[in-house]
Amino acid sequence: MSRVRILGVDPGSRFTGFGVIENEAGRSRLIAAGRLDVREGTMADRLLGVLNGLADVIREYQPQESAVEETFVNRVNAASALVLGQARGAAICACAQAGLPVSEYAAAQVKLAIAGNGRADKEQVAHMVRILLNTREALAADASDALAVALTHAHVRITRLRTGDALKRAWG
Amino acid sequence: MSRVRILGVDPGSRFTGFGVIENEAGRSRLIAAGRLDVREGTMADRLLGVLNGLADVIREYQPQESAVEETFVNRVNAASALVLGQARGAAICACAQAGLPVSEYAAAQVKLAIAGNGRADKEQVAHMVRILLNTREALAADASDALAVALTHAHVRITRLRTGDALKRAWG
Repeated sequence: MSRVRILGVDPGSRFTGFGVIENEAGRSRLIAAGRLDVREGTMADRLLGVLNGLADVIREYQPQESAVEETFVNRVNAASALVLGQARGAAICACAQAGLPVSEYAAAQVKLAIAGNGRADKEQVAHMVRILLNTREALAADASDALAVALTHAHVRITRLRTGDALKRAWG
Repeated sequence: MSRVRILGVDPGSRFTGFGVIENEAGRSRLIAAGRLDVREGTMADRLLGVLNGLADVIREYQPQESAVEETFVNRVNAASALVLGQARGAAICACAQAGLPVSEYAAAQVKLAIAGNGRADKEQVAHMVRILLNTREALAADASDALAVALTHAHVRITRLRTGDALKRAWG
C-alpha cells in the first residue's frame, strides 16, 4: 500500500487548525500541525488569511489529499453558522485550488474512527490522536482536531482500498 | 470625481450572481452582469466554481472595488446558513485574492439605497436597478441583486467622498 500525505483542517473564523500526517501500511506519523490565527482585520482579511495560510501549508508539506471536519450546526444559531460557513468555504477553496481531493467528515464520524465512540469527549479524542501518532507533543485544540479528521480520512480510505482489493480478488 | 468600477456579488451555493457597474460623477452604467451556475459536483467543486468564476469576471472587467450582500439569516436554519456561508466565503476570497477592497451591505441597506425603502420587495428593487442603470436588459434575479449591491456601494462611497471633501473645505 503506497504512502500518502493527508491534510486535515478544522476551520474557524478565529483560529483554523491544520494537521498533516503521512500514512503508510496503516500507520500514520505526524508531519506538521498548528493553527492559523485569523482574529485580526476585516472579514475579508481573515478569510484571505485562511485561504493563503492553508495554501502555504500545502506548498510546504505537499499533502495529496485533504479532509475537513463537517461543522455540527444544530447547537449554534444561524448567524454563527454563517460565519463558520465562511471560514469553511475559504478552507475548502484552499484545498480545491491546490488540486487536492476534499473529503468531509461529521464530528461523530471522527470521534467514532479515533476513539471508537461517536460521543467521545474532546479530551479522549486528543489523547487518542497523540497515541495514534505516537507523539508527546503538546497540541493546540484546533491542531489536534485537524489531526483527528486527517486520521479519520486515513482510516476510511484504507478501508475503502482494502474493500476494493478484496473485490478485485473476488471478481478478478 | 473619478471613475470607478464596482463588482457586486450575490453569493449562493446554487447560483452566484455578479454585476459590474462603472460609476462616474454620480451616474452608474452597466458593464456586465450574470450568474455562475454552480449546481454540479461536490461541494469543493462548487466552491471552486464560485472562486474561479468570480476571478474570471474580475480579470475580464477589472473592477477596483467590490461589494457583497450580507445574507439575512434570521429566516433560515443553521444548516442552510452554513451552506450559504461557504459560498459567501468563496466569493469574498475571490475578491480579496484579487486585491479588491470588500464592503458588505445588509439586505435592508440595499433596499433603502436602491428603492428608498428598507422593506421594498424584490420586484421594486429589480425595477429600480434597471432605471438607475438606464437599461432594458432582462436580468436574472441573482444578477439584478448583485447589481443592486454594487449600486448601493457606489451610493455609499460617494456620500463618504463628499463628506470627506466638505470636511477638507471646512477644516483646510
